[in-house]
Amino acid sequence: MKLMRVGEAGREKPALLDADGKIRDLSGHVADIGGEAISPAGLAKIAAIDPKSLPELAPGRIGACVAGTGKFICIGLNFSDHAAETGATVPPEPVIFMKATSAISGPNDTVRIPRGSEKTDWEVELGVVIGKTAKYVSEAEALDYVAGYCVSHDVSERAFQTERAGQWTKGKSCDTFGPIGPWLVTKDEIPDPQNLGMWLKVNGQTMQDGSSKTMVYGVAHIVSYLSQFMSLHPGDVISTGTPPGVGMGMKPPRYLRDGDVVELGIEGLGSQRQSFVADR
Amino acid sequence: MKLMRVGEAGREKPALLDADGKIRDLSGHVADIGGEAISPAGLAKIAAIDPKSLPELAPGRIGACVAGTGKFICIGLNFSDHAAETGATVPPEPVIFMKATSAISGPNDTVRIPRGSEKTDWEVELGVVIGKTAKYVSEAEALDYVAGYCVSHDVSERAFQTERAGQWTKGKSCDTFGPIGPWLVTKDEIPDPQNLGMWLKVNGQTMQDGSSKTMVYGVAHIVSYLSQFMSLHPGDVISTGTPPGVGMGMKPPRYLRDGDVVELGIEGLGSQRQSFVADR
Repeated sequence: MKLMRVGEAGREKPALLDADGKIRDLSGHVADIGGEAISPAGLAKIAAIDPKSLPELAPGRIGACVAGTGKFICIGLNFSDHAAETGATVPPEPVIFMKATSAISGPNDTVRIPRGSEKTDWEVELGVVIGKTAKYVSEAEALDYVAGYCVSHDVSERAFQTERAGQWTKGKSCDTFGPIGPWLVTKDEIPDPQNLGMWLKVNGQTMQDGSSKTMVYGVAHIVSYLSQFMSLHPGDVISTGTPPGVGMGMKPPRYLRDGDVVELGIEGLGSQRQSFVADR
Repeated sequence: MKLMRVGEAGREKPALLDADGKIRDLSGHVADIGGEAISPAGLAKIAAIDPKSLPELAPGRIGACVAGTGKFICIGLNFSDHAAETGATVPPEPVIFMKATSAISGPNDTVRIPRGSEKTDWEVELGVVIGKTAKYVSEAEALDYVAGYCVSHDVSERAFQTERAGQWTKGKSCDTFGPIGPWLVTKDEIPDPQNLGMWLKVNGQTMQDGSSKTMVYGVAHIVSYLSQFMSLHPGDVISTGTPPGVGMGMKPPRYLRDGDVVELGIEGLGSQRQSFVADR
């Protein structure tokens, strides 16, 4: 299933995309796409509904594909060729950092370049949405705790991230720096999350053209690994790292400016399109 | 006012501590201590209630003093003498990192030492609770966005934090590593947040005995600084750094073990007491 949230920011309705590409209103069945609704039992309940029985919604703004995200966890330097382009080596175990959940936005919402930014950069990433509380789970059982996948754009301000005193959080957490969606695609539709094409264009020019196949630490490993440190809860999102082709890796580096348009997508998970606008 | 949340985990009632030390039930007036209830208008509404008109609650478990926290932001190395004891220098601007909000727990709840932990450490910190959305605010107006203050215990696993590949998040975000409370003390009761005694004992022995007076970056500066990067929202908590005396700074280092008891407090903000129990 392709689950989504449609409507004005803060007032999205839960919905699903049917086989004909029509948006169907789920608000008579679930409160939102998140929490209990994306648990194994919740997803089974939605799967049992005949989409044709649901009211059709007019296309409109698409919100982030999951609501009530408590943690937005990112994995750093998780593609060996991306690590190389940034001058870093592949870490001996996953690098974890957090994006503020207040950075989450819709897949096609305007991204605001913060005041003082000179190095706003792009990163297409595979997002993993947790569906069931996970703590100390093994790699073999880890995917049982995953509800599905989405496109995640880990927008990053490189000067804030690396030149402004310790820790990456401040370059990752700016408002609108976390577009996720358009859809939460349930895992039954993605039999192998480690073999998905990933691409990103800036003003129509391809910048990233990779595959989740070259991830160093795969989804199952990451979910298991994180759960050794902290409980993962339904609605938590894990952004699993970016393939090569980011702006900071170019010679000379190329960063996003007011008026730039970024499009990105992942095989089977849909695509996003954002205009970048400078905060004044 | 001293606002608090009393009851079983996940089912706490909003309450206030009256002048006689009695716990008064606020659930007839506000849904919880968080969001709109801790905005300037929400706090004015609570302040207008005669505490004696509220039902008395029996003392019981105290929950985290604020609900619905979207971001749990920490400032690193913010006391010059603590930076020195860890071998670090004071950073040229505030170091920001995030604790997972799933780490938040009540002030006297058991803290679970995670599996594989050898270096679980303590840090008494002044917590700042945001009451109004703040973005690009100046230092002069920053305190207008603060609802109040609380004791925050930034429990930290030093090996997870610094020996397990990049970024501090994984040593800071373990479940139960974020006791906050007992009270959200509204800012009218704390005229100068930069002159509060701070203490912490392990098994009755004083380990930290400092003051917020030796913070490098004060509360107003931190709120303004953070708001240049991201919006702060009501219920967000900022833990502002710890004075000297942490376990990793001792020679030899001293870490917490199954059965240890930690007590900590801040002048005017009450105290916490936690038993540490190893996860098996």
